[in-house]
Order: sequence, then C-alpha cells, then structure tokens
Amino acid sequence: MLNEKNLGLGAVRSAIRELFEYGKARKAQIGEENVFDFSLGNPSVPAPDEVKKQLIDLLNNADPVALHGYTSAQGDLSVRQSIASGLNSRFGLKCGADNIYMTCGAAAAVCITLNALLNDGDEVLTFAPYFPEYKVFTEHAGGTLKALPCDNEFQPDIAALKGALSSKTKAVLINTPNNPSGVVYGGEKLKAIADALSGYCAQTGAEIYLISDEPYRELVYGAAEKTPSVLCLYARSVVCYSYSKSLSLPGERIGYIAVNPAMENSAEVYTAVCGAGRALGYVCAPSLFQKLVERVGDMTSDLSVYGRNRDLLYGELKRLGFGVIKPDGAFYLFVKSPEPSAEKFALRAREMELLIVPSTSFGLEGYARISYCVSTDMIKRSLPAFEKLAKSYNLH
Amino acid sequence: MLNEKNLGLGAVRSAIRELFEYGKARKAQIGEENVFDFSLGNPSVPAPDEVKKQLIDLLNNADPVALHGYTSAQGDLSVRQSIASGLNSRFGLKCGADNIYMTCGAAAAVCITLNALLNDGDEVLTFAPYFPEYKVFTEHAGGTLKALPCDNEFQPDIAALKGALSSKTKAVLINTPNNPSGVVYGGEKLKAIADALSGYCAQTGAEIYLISDEPYRELVYGAAEKTPSVLCLYARSVVCYSYSKSLSLPGERIGYIAVNPAMENSAEVYTAVCGAGRALGYVCAPSLFQKLVERVGDMTSDLSVYGRNRDLLYGELKRLGFGVIKPDGAFYLFVKSPEPSAEKFALRAREMELLIVPSTSFGLEGYARISYCVSTDMIKRSLPAFEKLAKSYNLH
Repeated sequence: MLNEKNLGLGAVRSAIRELFEYGKARKAQIGEENVFDFSLGNPSVPAPDEVKKQLIDLLNNADPVALHGYTSAQGDLSVRQSIASGLNSRFGLKCGADNIYMTCGAAAAVCITLNALLNDGDEVLTFAPYFPEYKVFTEHAGGTLKALPCDNEFQPDIAALKGALSSKTKAVLINTPNNPSGVVYGGEKLKAIADALSGYCAQTGAEIYLISDEPYRELVYGAAEKTPSVLCLYARSVVCYSYSKSLSLPGERIGYIAVNPAMENSAEVYTAVCGAGRALGYVCAPSLFQKLVERVGDMTSDLSVYGRNRDLLYGELKRLGFGVIKPDGAFYLFVKSPEPSAEKFALRAREMELLIVPSTSFGLEGYARISYCVSTDMIKRSLPAFEKLAKSYNLH
Repeated sequence: MLNEKNLGLGAVRSAIRELFEYGKARKAQIGEENVFDFSLGNPSVPAPDEVKKQLIDLLNNADPVALHGYTSAQGDLSVRQSIASGLNSRFGLKCGADNIYMTCGAAAAVCITLNALLNDGDEVLTFAPYFPEYKVFTEHAGGTLKALPCDNEFQPDIAALKGALSSKTKAVLINTPNNPSGVVYGGEKLKAIADALSGYCAQTGAEIYLISDEPYRELVYGAAEKTPSVLCLYARSVVCYSYSKSLSLPGERIGYIAVNPAMENSAEVYTAVCGAGRALGYVCAPSLFQKLVERVGDMTSDLSVYGRNRDLLYGELKRLGFGVIKPDGAFYLFVKSPEPSAEKFALRAREMELLIVPSTSFGLEGYARISYCVSTDMIKRSLPAFEKLAKSYNLH
C-alpha cells in the first residue's frame, strides 16, 4: 500500500493545475489563440532586463564552483544580509541575516514554516477564500486548517477570528494581496488581526503565530496602500516571500522566510525552520538565483500591465452584468457566479473557451477566479466570449 | 511548543554541515590556505564550459516568460522526454516522460519518493555506512530506518538483508557509488539484492521497493564498471538522480526521480510521487536548470581530477600507515580510525587543521570520511598534517 494521502493528492491534482493542463491540451487541439486561459498565476510580463543582464554577468564573471556550489542550508550569508537590510530600511525593522532563511519560493516557505511550528493536532486558521495548498501543507505538517469567513468585501472577519481562537490554535495564516480575491488587507485590518491575537494570548498565555504569505506584496494598484508588513505589527510573526511575481520568475523557485526578530523565541523558531527545511529535503535554495536576488531583489518587472488589465476586465465584466469585487492587488479578479454552483459556472465558461477557476477550490462557494496576468490582447479577444457567457445567464 | 522533532534537527544540524560551517569560520580566522577542509561533497571542478554557454544562450534567445515560468509540477514535458530517451538508450529501458519527475536535486528526490511510498510504521532498510539524511527523510515520512551491515569491503551483506526482510519492510534504499565509503556496487551485487527481494516477495506476497540514490552515478574510476541501473534488474525500483556532481551544480538543485516502467503499479507510484512533491511544497524544479539539463544532461565536468586525487591520497595515506578502503567511485575515501572513537580521531585531525567527518554520522563506528573533491594542490599541502596525525598515533 502506497501512502494513501499522497496518492490521493497526486490523483486529484489542484484544480488550478488541472485546468492549466486542460488548457495546454485544448490549445494544441484548437489553436492557442482560440483558448482564453485565465487559470494560472504565471506572470505574463517578462523579468526585468536587469535579471538577464545580471545572470549573464554572474555566469561570465563569478567563479563557477562558488556560483553553482552549495550555499549554507539557510542561504548564502551575504544574500541574507542584503535581504535583511532591504526589509529594515523599508519597514523600519531590525532583521539580521539570521532572521532570513532562503527557500525554493513561497510554497516551500509556507510548508517549511508550518512544519517548524506545528505538532500533531494543532489548528491553523485562515480566511476563505484561500490558496488551496494551505490545506495540503497544513495537513502534511500534522495540523488541521480551519477556514474563517470574510466580510462582503472579502476582508477578514475579525469577530469570527476572535470566536475561533482556542487552545488548539497554533497559527493564523493570511495572504495579502489575496489569492484568489485580489483584495488587499490595509494596515487597520492587519492591526485588528494582531490585536485579536495579542489580546487572546495575553489573556490565556497562548502562543499564536501569525504567518503572512506575501508573494504578491509588490503587486498593488491604484489608491490602495502598499501592503504593510505584519513584522511591524505583531511580534510572533513570520513572513513568507517569493520573487515569483515581483520579478516574473515563478519557475525558478526563489523566496525566503523572515522570522520576526522582535519575537521572544525568534532564534528558536529560526532553528525549527532550519530543521523543517532539512526534514523536507530542501538542501538549499537555488544558488544562482540566490545571488541574483542579492543584486536585483528590490526591482520589479513592469507591473503596470496588470493594472491596465484589471481596469479593462473589471470595467467590461461589470458592464456585462457580472458581480465583481474590484481588486486592489495581485493579478486576480473574483467574479460572482450567476448560479449557485461555481463549478457549473466554470464549466459553462469552458464551453466558451474561457478557463476560469471555480472558488470551490479556494474553500468558498459561488465565485470564480480570473487570473489577469495575461496579455491585454488576449483579454480584448476574450470579451465576446464573456459577453456570450453573460447572455447565457441573461445578465443584461 | 514548536515542532520538537524539527527544532531538534535544526539545532544539531548534520555533522557534515556543522564541520563545513566550522571550516568557514576557521578559514576566516587563520587563512584559507591553512585549513584543509575535506568535509563537504561540494564538487571542486567547475561545471563544463557548455553549461555557461547554454545558460547564456537560453537567457539570450528563449522567451523569458516561458524560460522562467512554472513548468508542469512533474517537470517540463520536453525535458522529461529527453531524460527518458537518454536512460532508454543507455540502459535499454522503456521509460516515457511520465516515468520521470523532475526534482530539486537527489535529496528532494529521496524525500519525495519516501513520502510517496511510506505509511506510518513502515520500515526502510539501508546499509551502513549511509548518508545521514536517509534517517531524517525516512522519519519525516513516518517510517523507521534500519541499517544493515556491509562486509569487510563495504559491500552490502546479502545474508543480513535476507534476515531483515519482514512484513514491515516497505523499501530498501541503496546508494552506489557510495557516500561515504566510495565503494561501487557491481552488477552481481545489485543482482543479489534484487534476487533477495524478488525471492522474499514471491514467497510472501510482499511488495518491497528498491530505491537507488545515484548522485554519483557518473563518478567511477579505474577498472570499476559503471554502476549498472537497478531499473534493469528489479521491476519495483525507483532511481533518484542528481546533476549536482556530474555537472558540478550542487547548489542549483536539479535532479529527477525515475519510476521503473516495468513496475506493475508504475503509474500509481508516479501519481503518489506527484502527490508527495505537492505535499512537501515542491511546486516544480527550477525551470532554467530543467531546460539546461535537456541540453547538457549527458555531459559531465572534467572528473579526471577526482581520479588523480584518489590515487594521490589513497597512496599517501596507505604509506603513512592508515587503514584505507580503495574507493572506486564518488569522491570519498573512507579511512579507519586508529582509535575506537571516530569522533576523537576527527577531533585530533582537526587540531592539525584537517577537517574530516567521523563515520558515526553515517551510522558506523571507527572510520572517517575524507572528501577529496578538493584541489590536488590542497591535498599536497595537507600531507604534512596527515603525516603528523599518523605520527601522533605511531602508525609508522
């Protein structure tokens, strides 16, 4: 008997990946230009030119043995120092190299953090809708993920959080800008979460961690404030970051964990992170890309196209009669399903060659996620299909 | 309470990593040239020029969005096809792309394979000395690692294997060329292992997997035959491979799992591998290096220096009176400790600025591992220190 749990995970795949694979096959069948694939969060803008320039410079001028060699398990010292300095000057923190642990992207960061913190039976709270792998990672680490509701604007419901905190709660896992809703939690909201946790911990002696998954940190549009750092608001906090979206490098798997130096047991948590990384087989994060982010980690790709895509798609979907939440960040738009079943809605969209992800995958009924990290041209070409979809529901 | 197991793992680090960190600090203290660091398996020969050339070509000519984008979770299709073809033509196999799963190196490959196969309480058998992380990975996957003895030449003891097989045995994990002994298992020995497993399974109806960890597959010297593939010898087998040593890219974390297509439930095992990779947070293997190994995966660095290092060090240590096993592969030399405690021997060596790893880390008393993936010049300069060490034990 194989491991039943992992066999099951491999068999179902994530719905997002599933749709991505369907899209690839469908494109091969009817032509790339006839499938409107809004399924995957794969950045559509290229990495900045500086990425290529610096990678080539490293390849031409660095000693290849050092360049491609093992780094320390927690990451190259100088890379970690530069990331710590960057965080300190941006957010007024006091991170050192030993608060930063380099990872193979944010997924690995969340997975390692959960394995560092959780014991069997511990509970992790998150807000629905949420990234579906949170459940997979939490359960692999021996815990249980409990989803709490958001309000009508997809902001965390603080009363629900207060009601859910218990002696089982080990961590609260948040994600802002949010995948799949595109909503950004403002400073006030984050402070309310921090206060709820501080209050409960002060009252009960509990030690509850706040894990903030921030791969979309740099992707914020319009008037929305840049996502503040939870590291400034709550001592017992850990940030999971990735350069996947900011630098358009999702396949290269490079990110980090920042363990808040203000945390009482910061060194111990960092040690457990090192141990968890080891147990999961992460020897070190890819060395060439570690050295790259030391050089260009503060840059971003030209993210303006996402802002334009958002405006175009939001406007058009609204005009067509869809219920849409205006997203302030990430590159996702959350659209209300015109029928109760999001699955059926997504299937009907698929008949019109529109690939969108039903919100059921994100722990919520009745919505679908549209990833607008695609070419503006594809959005324009997809509009007749969205119109057909709207008409099929008599939306206007 | 943090996860106690991972906190412990983080606190102790592997003895090898520990020594590596000590070496870095010591070099900063007394000068790089005065420390003879034989602790880590970090290739000392650079990657072939073709690696740099092809990486720059990819960076200059491939679409950056595709080049750095997510691949399928199991790896880019065309990369997997090329690896399957390479294995087929070399070993006469019938692998397809769906027998290959790209990983972040061999450590991830072993870790993912164990998580795919094991249920709580399952036993994994290996032969001592063995790579210490096998225990960490097995226990993380819920199993127990049981070490079996080798014979005097550090070849697997087949009688011990036969005696240890039981209803608890889920897998046998082997590593040839071997870290830390440098010994290569020949075709006859591998066949004896396969026969022992086949015999037991036929008799009892058990299903036992043979996992072969082969990061040193291309590093074989002198008259020793190239390590044959277990995929030809035993149907229920899985190979874990890495390009770390063959292409001198250990920090880049690129390798693969090959699930034997001859296995009855091959597709199911592959599915469980996909699920385990997902649960452990491995979204995909680094995409640029996936595309690189499609182009240069059949090449190797100039490995001849390791052969020369082996001959030099083996000859000199023998001359000085040390008990040494002549290694046929990898870049490790196993030396017998002149006193019962390998730890004390390694500490005395350290006083002479020789950094070697006591065999206790590898589940065996009385030896130390010398990694000769270093410059030949450093070996020459280290000889007086080895002589001093030999004299301190009155070896000659």
